[in-house]
Amino acid sequence: MLYFENDYCEGAHPAVLQRLIETNMEKLPGYGTDGYCESAKDKIRAACACPQADVYFLVGGTQTNAAVISALLKRYEGVVAASTGHINGHEAGAVEYTGHKVLALPQKDGKISADGLRGYLQTFFGDENHEHMVFPGMAYISHPTEYGTLYSLDELEKLSLVCREYSIPLFLDGARLGYGLASGGSDVTLEDIARLTDVFYIGGTKVGALCGEAVVFPAGAPHHFLTMIKQQGALLAKGRLLGIQFDTLFTDDLYRKISENAIRTADTLKSALRRKGYEFYLDSPTNQIFVVLENEQMERLSRLVTFSFWEKYDDTHTVVRFATSWATKMEEIEELIQLL
Amino acid sequence: MLYFENDYCEGAHPAVLQRLIETNMEKLPGYGTDGYCESAKDKIRAACACPQADVYFLVGGTQTNAAVISALLKRYEGVVAASTGHINGHEAGAVEYTGHKVLALPQKDGKISADGLRGYLQTFFGDENHEHMVFPGMAYISHPTEYGTLYSLDELEKLSLVCREYSIPLFLDGARLGYGLASGGSDVTLEDIARLTDVFYIGGTKVGALCGEAVVFPAGAPHHFLTMIKQQGALLAKGRLLGIQFDTLFTDDLYRKISENAIRTADTLKSALRRKGYEFYLDSPTNQIFVVLENEQMERLSRLVTFSFWEKYDDTHTVVRFATSWATKMEEIEELIQLL
Amino acid sequence: MLYFENDYCEGAHPAVLQRLIETNMEKLPGYGTDGYCESAKDKIRAACACPQADVYFLVGGTQTNAAVISALLKRYEGVVAASTGHINGHEAGAVEYTGHKVLALPQKDGKISADGLRGYLQTFFGDENHEHMVFPGMAYISHPTEYGTLYSLDELEKLSLVCREYSIPLFLDGARLGYGLASGGSDVTLEDIARLTDVFYIGGTKVGALCGEAVVFPAGAPHHFLTMIKQQGALLAKGRLLGIQFDTLFTDDLYRKISENAIRTADTLKSALRRKGYEFYLDSPTNQIFVVLENEQMERLSRLVTFSFWEKYDDTHTVVRFATSWATKMEEIEELIQLL
Amino acid sequence: MLYFENDYCEGAHPAVLQRLIETNMEKLPGYGTDGYCESAKDKIRAACACPQADVYFLVGGTQTNAAVISALLKRYEGVVAASTGHINGHEAGAVEYTGHKVLALPQKDGKISADGLRGYLQTFFGDENHEHMVFPGMAYISHPTEYGTLYSLDELEKLSLVCREYSIPLFLDGARLGYGLASGGSDVTLEDIARLTDVFYIGGTKVGALCGEAVVFPAGAPHHFLTMIKQQGALLAKGRLLGIQFDTLFTDDLYRKISENAIRTADTLKSALRRKGYEFYLDSPTNQIFVVLENEQMERLSRLVTFSFWEKYDDTHTVVRFATSWATKMEEIEELIQLL
Repeated sequence: MLYFENDYCEGAHPAVLQRLIETNMEKLPGYGTDGYCESAKDKIRAACACPQADVYFLVGGTQTNAAVISALLKRYEGVVAASTGHINGHEAGAVEYTGHKVLALPQKDGKISADGLRGYLQTFFGDENHEHMVFPGMAYISHPTEYGTLYSLDELEKLSLVCREYSIPLFLDGARLGYGLASGGSDVTLEDIARLTDVFYIGGTKVGALCGEAVVFPAGAPHHFLTMIKQQGALLAKGRLLGIQFDTLFTDDLYRKISENAIRTADTLKSALRRKGYEFYLDSPTNQIFVVLENEQMERLSRLVTFSFWEKYDDTHTVVRFATSWATKMEEIEELIQLL
Repeated sequence: MLYFENDYCEGAHPAVLQRLIETNMEKLPGYGTDGYCESAKDKIRAACACPQADVYFLVGGTQTNAAVISALLKRYEGVVAASTGHINGHEAGAVEYTGHKVLALPQKDGKISADGLRGYLQTFFGDENHEHMVFPGMAYISHPTEYGTLYSLDELEKLSLVCREYSIPLFLDGARLGYGLASGGSDVTLEDIARLTDVFYIGGTKVGALCGEAVVFPAGAPHHFLTMIKQQGALLAKGRLLGIQFDTLFTDDLYRKISENAIRTADTLKSALRRKGYEFYLDSPTNQIFVVLENEQMERLSRLVTFSFWEKYDDTHTVVRFATSWATKMEEIEELIQLL
Repeated sequence: MLYFENDYCEGAHPAVLQRLIETNMEKLPGYGTDGYCESAKDKIRAACACPQADVYFLVGGTQTNAAVISALLKRYEGVVAASTGHINGHEAGAVEYTGHKVLALPQKDGKISADGLRGYLQTFFGDENHEHMVFPGMAYISHPTEYGTLYSLDELEKLSLVCREYSIPLFLDGARLGYGLASGGSDVTLEDIARLTDVFYIGGTKVGALCGEAVVFPAGAPHHFLTMIKQQGALLAKGRLLGIQFDTLFTDDLYRKISENAIRTADTLKSALRRKGYEFYLDSPTNQIFVVLENEQMERLSRLVTFSFWEKYDDTHTVVRFATSWATKMEEIEELIQLL
Repeated sequence: MLYFENDYCEGAHPAVLQRLIETNMEKLPGYGTDGYCESAKDKIRAACACPQADVYFLVGGTQTNAAVISALLKRYEGVVAASTGHINGHEAGAVEYTGHKVLALPQKDGKISADGLRGYLQTFFGDENHEHMVFPGMAYISHPTEYGTLYSLDELEKLSLVCREYSIPLFLDGARLGYGLASGGSDVTLEDIARLTDVFYIGGTKVGALCGEAVVFPAGAPHHFLTMIKQQGALLAKGRLLGIQFDTLFTDDLYRKISENAIRTADTLKSALRRKGYEFYLDSPTNQIFVVLENEQMERLSRLVTFSFWEKYDDTHTVVRFATSWATKMEEIEELIQLL
C-alpha cells in the first residue's frame, strides 16, 4: 500500500527522535521551563528576526487555535475566518466551546481577501444595531490554507493593514507553515509573517515532530497565557518533549530542509498528473494536490493507494487529495505515477 | 544536584522510547485508529479484567480531568471532590472553564469518605431549594491522592456503593496509579478499580511515558466521546505516540515493574528519615514523602537537592515533599540520606 | 412623530396591565409556582390541544433561545438555523456563549427548506470525518421569520418529518407567533405547531405583554429545566409577573384578537403602498412590511415617522421596514399613508 | 395564612405600578434608551453622589451577578466570595456556567473580613505555583448578606483598601440594599458604597419593584457591557419597564421610605421575640430574622404562617427565618406575635 492520505502518518524526523533519545535521562524541570525550551524559543525568535517575541509550545492544532483565539478575544467578540477555515468546519466546535462565534466570510481557494474583510468590518460598525451582534475581534487565516493555497506577500500586507486599521489581531494558523515557506510559489518569509501578524504558529505535527506547535506572539503574549493554556488542559508536564523537538527542527535549518522534500515530491507528482491530462480541482503550490478522478479509477486506485476523498465533483467524478510530507520518498511518487 | 522535586523530570522509560524508535517510520492512520492503539487497549482491558471496557488515550492529566468530567456531567451538574483535589486547586479552573462547578467536600489525608459523600447527597436532595443549586452529578477521587495516600478496598467499595445508590458516576484520577498499585500499603487492584468506578485513568506522564493518560470506561464511554475530545482540543493527530507507549507499558507487566522502583526507593528513604527522627507530615504509602524540616536545614539542603515546598508548618519549620519515580536510582536515595 | 419602528414600543395591553393591578397585593409564592402561572399553563395547553405539554415562562426572546437551545443540545452538538435566523446574527452570540455552534443554512425569505435541511444532514452523516465536526443536534426556525414570512403547513410538516427521521428536535421561535397565527396568509394553527415541533415559544414581549415568552414542550421538558433556567440567570423571582400576563392573554382569546389588529393595520398599509406603486422587498403576510424607498424620500419621511433601516438596495434606494403591532391605530396608518 | 416567607411575595409598590399605568401607552424606544431610563440613571447617580457613574438595569439578581462577574473577570480569573455567598450556593452555578470559579472564603455571619481576604491574596501570590491556579480576579460581598447582616463602614473601608492594593474590583450585591441602608444598625450610606466599591447593584425585586436591579459602576462600566448583557440573554426589549420603576423608586426618596417599613416591622418582631425568650441564631439588623424554634412549635406554627426552614439546630430544634418587606403591615406583625 502507498500512503498519500495525509502528512502525519509517520512518527518524527529521525534527527528529532535522535535528540529525544540523547536527552532522555536528563533531569529537567517541567511545564516548559527547561533549557531546551529556552533554546528552541531563541532559535525561533532568530528565525523570525523578532528578538522580542514570546514563544509558547502547545501540543496540537485544534488546541492551539482554541487556546490562542479564546485568549485574545474579549468576551463579546468572535473570530472572522474563511467559511472553509479549519476552525469553522473541522474542529468539532472547539472555538464555540470556549464561548466565541466563528464569523464566516466568503472565501476563494480557501483564502479571505483584504477587501472582503474590510467590507465586513465596515458593514458591522456601520450597522446601528451592531451592539446586538457579535463583534469581530480578530481575523484568522491559515497559510497554507486547507486547500494548500498561499497568501502572497501583497495579500498578507493588505490583510494586516485592515486588521491594524480596525485594531484587531491577525492570527495565522501555520499547521503546515513549513510547506508554505518552502514552496516555490511563495514570496512570504517567516520574517514577513512575524512582521505582519499579531500571532501565528509554526506547525510541528505535520512537519517532522511527533506532536507540537510553536506559537509566536511577535509583540508579546497576553498576560498569563500560561495559565490560560493550563485552564484549557493544554499545558504539557514534560514540556521538554516539545522544546527538544523544536530545538532540533530549528537547528541547521532542518525545518526548512525537510519541508522542501514535501514540495519537491509534490511538484514531481503534479507534473506527472498534468502530463497525463488530469484535471486539477484547484492549483495548490504546496504539499496537497487536489485532483479530479473518474469514479471507477478512484475505486481501483484505492485498493493500492491511500488518499483523501474530498468531495463529489459530478455523478461520475470525485475530487480527491494526495498529500506529500517531509517523509515522502521520490520512489513512492514514482510508484504512484505508475498507477495513475 | 539531586532531583526529588517531582516524578516527571526524566523523559520516557528506555523500553518505551525504544519502541517509539522501532516503529517510527511505519505509516499509520491518525487519531488513535492505528493498530498500536488497538493493541494497547486490548492489553489494558485484559489488565483490568474488563473485556467490554472502552479505552481512550489523552495527553495530560488536567486535560483528561476536564474532558471526562465535562463529558459525563449534565449541564446543571457539578462534580464533588475533596477540597484538596487536584481539580479544585491546581488546574487553573479547567473544570469551571467547561461550565461546571467543583463541589468541594471536607477531606482527611486527601481523601473523602463514603459517609461524607452520602451526607452531602442526602442534605442536597433533602433541601427543598435544591433546584436552585448545583446538582452533584459525579464524584471525583484521586488514587493516590495529592498527598500520596490511598483508598483502602473497603473505602472504595463504600464510596462506589454511595455513588450507585445515587446514580452518579465515580471517577478515579489515576495520574499516579502505578505507584498506588505497586504500594505495599494497598489492597486495591486494577480489577477492583474497574469494578468499582465508572471511569478512571491510568497515568502515563508520571509513570514512564513522555506523555499520555489512558482513560478506561469499564461499562462503556459516553456517545461521541471522541468528538468531545476533539472539541476540547485534546485529540492527538499522531495517536500512535500514545498507543505505542501504553502498548509497551502494558507488555510484560512493565507498568507495574517500573512503579515498584518508585515504591522501593521511597520506602528506603522513609526508613532512613524515620531512623533519623524526622517528623512526617502524614503517612504516605506511595512515592511522595511529606516531611517536616527545620527552616535552616531546608535552606541548606536546597542548595544540593531539589524538592517541593509544601506549606509552612510553624515559624521555624516547613513541610516539604520528596518524590521518587520509576527513574529514581537507589544511589540517589543513598546520597540524599547522607545529606539529611 | 409616527412610530412604525418596531412592535414593542408601548407597554402592555390594557387588559394585561389591569390584571396586574388587580392582583398586585396578593401574596404569592415565587419562581413560577403561583396559581396564576398554573392557570396560564393550563390555558396554553388547552389552546395547543396538548394537555401533557410542559410550559415555562421566560422573560425575553434571546434569553429563551439560549436557554432552550443549550438545554436540548448535547455538548458536541450545534443548532441548525437559517443564516438570517435571529440566533445567528442578532443575539450577540448568546448561543455560542453557551458553548454551541450555530450551523447556518442557506435561506429563502428567511426560511430553510426541508430539502435543504435533509441535504445538510445527509452530507454531514455521510462525511467519514464527521466525528471531527459539530453534530447538528436540533433545528431552529422562526415563525414568523425575521422577514415576517411564514412557513406553510406543508413546509412545516416536511421539516418536522426530516427532524424526526434524524431524531433531532425542531424548535420554533415564536417571538411574533400571534401575528403569524392571525395572518390571513397562514394555514398553520397553534395545534399544528404543538404537533409538529418539539419545543416552541409563544411571544409575549412583542404581542401585548410588558415582557415574557411562554415556552411549550409538547412532549415534556428536559429534566431539571428549571435549574437550567436559573443557571442562565433567567428565573424570575416574581414569576407571577409572567403568569398573570399570559393568563390574561390566553383568556377570551385575547392573544389572537390583539394580534389581528396588527395584521389588519399592516394589510391596510400594504394595500396603500401597492396602490401607490411602491416596490416590496419581499412579500410578508404578517406585521412587518419591507419596502424599497428612494433615498431622498426616506430622508424626508424619517423626520416625521420612525421606521427601521434594513439594508441598502442600490445607490439611490434603501430597504426599510414598517412594523405594526397590537397597539397600532388605524388612524396612525392613515396618517402614514398621507405621508407616503 | 400569614406570609413571612420572603420579601418578594407581593407585586410592586403601588406608586411604582401607578407610574407604569400612566406611561403605558407612550411610544418609547427599546433596550433602555428611553427617557425614563435616562431619568432613573440621573437620579441614581445623584443618590450616590457619583455623577460620572454608569448605570444599567437588569432583570434579576442571579442574572446580574453572572453578568457583572463575567464581564469584569479575565478568562483565567475567579471571584472570591464568602462560602455562604449567594453566588456560591444558591444560583445553580450561574457563575461557573460563564466559565469562572467561585473561590470560597471562610465567613462569619455571612461576611468575609479584610484580613481574611488579604491573607488569601497574599498566600495566592506567594505560592510559586500560582500560575497553575485560578487567579482571584474580584471580590464579591453582599450587603445585607444572606444572613441579613451588614458590613460596618470600617469593615467596608478595609475591604476596599485590600482590593485596591491588589487591583481587583470589589463588587457589592445589593439585592436587599434598601433594607441595609434603612437599618438603624448601619453606618454605611449609598455614597460610601459608591466610593468604596467598583460595582454594586441596588435591588429592586425585593424592594418594591416587579423586577429589576440597578447596576452602578461608579468609575464607569467595562466597554460594551450592553453587548455582554445581550449575550447573556439579559437585555430587556422594553427597557422602560425597568427605567420607569427605578425612576419612581428614586423619586421623593421612595426607595428609602419603603425600606424603612421593613426595618420597623422587623424591629417590632425582634423585640417581641426577645421578650418572649426566643433564641436568635444570629443577630441581624435588617429584615431577615433567624430564630431557633422547638420542632413541635414550628410544626404548629407552619399551619398558620409561612416562613423559611433554614437549617436543623439540634434534634428537637430548628433554625427558621421570618422576612419582612416594604409591604409588611404592622397588623401582620401583631398577629404573628400573638401566635408565637
